[in-house]
Amino acid sequence: MLQFSEKTIERLIIYRRILLDILKSSDSNIYSHQLASNAGVNSAQVRRDLMGIGYSGSSKNGYDVAMLLKGISEVIDTPEGEGVAIVGLGHLGRAILDYFRGRRQKLEIRAAFDHDPAKYDRVFHGVRCYHTDNMNQVCRELNITVGIIAIPPDCAEEIAYKLAEAGVTGILNYAPVKIDLPQNIYIENRDMIMAVEKAAYHARQSHERKAVHECIS
Amino acid sequence: MLQFSEKTIERLIIYRRILLDILKSSDSNIYSHQLASNAGVNSAQVRRDLMGIGYSGSSKNGYDVAMLLKGISEVIDTPEGEGVAIVGLGHLGRAILDYFRGRRQKLEIRAAFDHDPAKYDRVFHGVRCYHTDNMNQVCRELNITVGIIAIPPDCAEEIAYKLAEAGVTGILNYAPVKIDLPQNIYIENRDMIMAVEKAAYHARQSHERKAVHECIS
Repeated sequence: MLQFSEKTIERLIIYRRILLDILKSSDSNIYSHQLASNAGVNSAQVRRDLMGIGYSGSSKNGYDVAMLLKGISEVIDTPEGEGVAIVGLGHLGRAILDYFRGRRQKLEIRAAFDHDPAKYDRVFHGVRCYHTDNMNQVCRELNITVGIIAIPPDCAEEIAYKLAEAGVTGILNYAPVKIDLPQNIYIENRDMIMAVEKAAYHARQSHERKAVHECIS
Repeated sequence: MLQFSEKTIERLIIYRRILLDILKSSDSNIYSHQLASNAGVNSAQVRRDLMGIGYSGSSKNGYDVAMLLKGISEVIDTPEGEGVAIVGLGHLGRAILDYFRGRRQKLEIRAAFDHDPAKYDRVFHGVRCYHTDNMNQVCRELNITVGIIAIPPDCAEEIAYKLAEAGVTGILNYAPVKIDLPQNIYIENRDMIMAVEKAAYHARQSHERKAVHECIS
């Protein structure tokens, strides 16, 4: 099994999104510099990444979009697909369900969990919602390996451990609390408040640069 | 004006969140190794970062939590606070409004925008929703410099340009489409589908490592 760095995987995921967009248009070929400019990296990086998964373009025609898509998907996806569960069907959970619908063939939200009686045993955007207490059984039956946590911070860590017990090995945590799990479980903490704080800091920097610029000119 | 790297700012934001949690408990002091372990970095990095903003702890008592919070906040926040606008009050927009409420003193969501007549001119979680057409006027009046895009991909780029025209200099884009803006505007693209794809890749890696491990042992 080939191993790729986290950064390489991120770039391959970006390349794939660009290629999927291009496939919708009529272009069947793409040059490394086009892919690079769309992805915000340099062409040498693109060529190195694609060489790493066994693809080299021709200087005349660049890369075949469909072939490249297939190659990248073989790295990112499993042939049988992966099952995803979402915990929490509040606004965020439903937004994610909605965004996801039909966008990725090999990555499927197969279950949702909530402890609100108004939600479990119902179907949202084609996905059945189960009671949180049934997580272990449902995740194993539906072969779920990826979990998305979209609940308030109070019980996020408990839920993360429950997901891990249910066989989930990759977790995306949107609750505004950092969760640590045993090393064999991948967890990415995506705190939305911190993201806004970072954007705000950079907004101020841009603002001050603009002010200085206007002062000088 | 001191300049910090993007990574330093990210770490300072993480430190602040940890310190805010500690402040809620009874501890008034913290050692660099505690902060480091909570933030997932090493102690030398913590000491270097805090030295960079003018703080050094004592080996006996570590750092004073309240003082450190004040120091970090002076770097991250502006004294007068920053105004944030959210575009799109679908599930995601409302989830963000809800998460944000009362969590940061100096970062305030002052307006929401939507073109749905059922939403504008109403107040959600204490934030008034305006018609997208009034963005320029409202953002300038309310001194908004940060924008969050929480709409479908089709018109996300158009909205980003409108925000920039309205004086916004930092944007967080949650629409699943990469937006490029002039260099003086900070934009962070946070595609949720890509985040799940990345978690899924790592989930598979963990899964395969576990399988290999069970096979050997």
